[in-house]
Amino acid sequence: MSAKFWSHLVSQLKPYTPGEQPRIDGLIKLNTNENPYPPSPKVQALLDDKAIADLRLYPDPANKYLKQAIANHFELGIEQVCVGNGSDEVLAFAFQGLLKQAKPILFPDITYGFYPVYCDLYGIEYQEIPLQDDFSLGLAAYPQDNGGVIFANPNAPTGLAIDLAEIEQLLMRNTESVVIVDEAYIDFGGESAAGLINRYPNLLVTQTLSKSRSLAGSRVGFALGNASLIEALKTIKNCFNPYSVDRLAELAATTAMEDDVYRRQCCNKIVASREWITEQLNQLGFETLPSKANFIMTKPAGIEAKALFEQLREHKILVRYFSKPRIADYLRISIGSDEEMKALLRAVKAILADG
Amino acid sequence: MSAKFWSHLVSQLKPYTPGEQPRIDGLIKLNTNENPYPPSPKVQALLDDKAIADLRLYPDPANKYLKQAIANHFELGIEQVCVGNGSDEVLAFAFQGLLKQAKPILFPDITYGFYPVYCDLYGIEYQEIPLQDDFSLGLAAYPQDNGGVIFANPNAPTGLAIDLAEIEQLLMRNTESVVIVDEAYIDFGGESAAGLINRYPNLLVTQTLSKSRSLAGSRVGFALGNASLIEALKTIKNCFNPYSVDRLAELAATTAMEDDVYRRQCCNKIVASREWITEQLNQLGFETLPSKANFIMTKPAGIEAKALFEQLREHKILVRYFSKPRIADYLRISIGSDEEMKALLRAVKAILADG
Repeated sequence: MSAKFWSHLVSQLKPYTPGEQPRIDGLIKLNTNENPYPPSPKVQALLDDKAIADLRLYPDPANKYLKQAIANHFELGIEQVCVGNGSDEVLAFAFQGLLKQAKPILFPDITYGFYPVYCDLYGIEYQEIPLQDDFSLGLAAYPQDNGGVIFANPNAPTGLAIDLAEIEQLLMRNTESVVIVDEAYIDFGGESAAGLINRYPNLLVTQTLSKSRSLAGSRVGFALGNASLIEALKTIKNCFNPYSVDRLAELAATTAMEDDVYRRQCCNKIVASREWITEQLNQLGFETLPSKANFIMTKPAGIEAKALFEQLREHKILVRYFSKPRIADYLRISIGSDEEMKALLRAVKAILADG
Repeated sequence: MSAKFWSHLVSQLKPYTPGEQPRIDGLIKLNTNENPYPPSPKVQALLDDKAIADLRLYPDPANKYLKQAIANHFELGIEQVCVGNGSDEVLAFAFQGLLKQAKPILFPDITYGFYPVYCDLYGIEYQEIPLQDDFSLGLAAYPQDNGGVIFANPNAPTGLAIDLAEIEQLLMRNTESVVIVDEAYIDFGGESAAGLINRYPNLLVTQTLSKSRSLAGSRVGFALGNASLIEALKTIKNCFNPYSVDRLAELAATTAMEDDVYRRQCCNKIVASREWITEQLNQLGFETLPSKANFIMTKPAGIEAKALFEQLREHKILVRYFSKPRIADYLRISIGSDEEMKALLRAVKAILADG
């Protein structure tokens, strides 16, 4: 591809590789950590004729209703909330507006693959801190002299969560740079750091409605933090694309935030399915990390991870394989419905029997 | 606001000021160039129960259906199309991925207010070229030694369009940098440069579904150009937020692209309303620039522009006033429905009679 007219930056970038989104009939899709259950039934009631006719009008660039619903949920002020087009957009704003500093930022070597991509996009230096041998974060070893710290809790793709006490210990030591806790998967068993925001002015927490609230297709995420941190994100947003949360997405997201009973029901079902499949796979000799997310990271027995990935695909079951050091022996499997988990188990047993 | 944890960039930014989006009952909103007519009736049929249940799934990050519909409309290849969250996002990608060059880029001094904002966001040097005395672009005078050129056709907020021949003359001279034609308002009477794309590898055309296709609330825009230019935009997009066009937005936008009969009907009605209100205001002594957009720029007679803006607001009619040199004597008025235009005229006459 001729790069004659490209900005210098473009040729240096290596985009993030999202999980495949193939359109194959009958596919059991366990590769991108989507929720097997539909969004709150109240969402459907809201997306009515008037909502669609009103698409001729711009969204509210301040997304007041949505931010208020989020603020209410976390018992924070509206000025402590920033929303965006998925937590990916919110994270990008945070990298550009908070984590671009003179010193390198820190994150785990095995974590959400987008962090190094954002660093390259915005020219941010970074240092990857290796996970411990048991895949735990080991935050106690993070050096204090940094431009910022970001980690996911629970971490992806391991699914491991850390205690709030460990996060608070980091915050007590690390007072001179921003600490971002990416809580995309927090609702499946982790403890949110949102309650620490009023005590630590350098703490930013990000969450998404894509997972526990079944709105991956609506692209809504948010950040919670001290008003000054939020102001930085808003400034970036308003210099880039002030209306990035569209009208139907805002309606759906506001409703989903308000219908917390439904969210908890879905999460409880997913957690039960996770515990069941973990036990079943471990009975086959698999080694499954103790997950607090809506996916598991499991090391197959009797077959290589990559071979199992490929053979599951032939059974029309799509999971995720990362050909990356330390995790190449594992598969990441999203938790689907009970039926999907049973189909997965049947396929795994059939593949092992064939081998 | 304490900026202790901000990246250096943030304190230097001055965000774009979008038109107000107040929620006032009975307001006649003629300030942000929205379409007075709802989107294609086919959009409503598509946003059904299944579409809403499927919100649990991520959108297709490649937006294949939408890009194909756009490619078909313009008789281009799918590799010549990039879509994004409004043309604002697409423009931001173009500034970052194509217009950030060693030499300063060029754009008119009076045009879409976001261009200098993107330059500040991405550290791009720019030179503003003054419009001619009659507010025309005067592209012939643009120096060839530049890092890129961007202009809107029709221009905003003037509404003036230029001939394709003038654009082609620029392209024949300006072969060493990218030329971007921002065609947000092209469907209301201008001539699109999309047909020139296969002849000029440095031409990028951007359009939006917010105006002629009544989908401001869905946030979908696109760029058309040589595959190499599109590749640069896609690289930026995939390093930033690959899924920024959400599921319902893609469905609505695909349908709206395909229902071109409806688009033309709406545009014809808006053009007729524009010609009518222009004539009526000119009969009152107003000087209205000859618009090819869904708004007019008009210089009131018998009252200062700013005073008329304020008094119209008291009549619950919101238009746009820019306190900027050269255009401070004008108001920009979006073309609404015939009823809204009649209400505007009645209010103007009442205000003039009171004065």
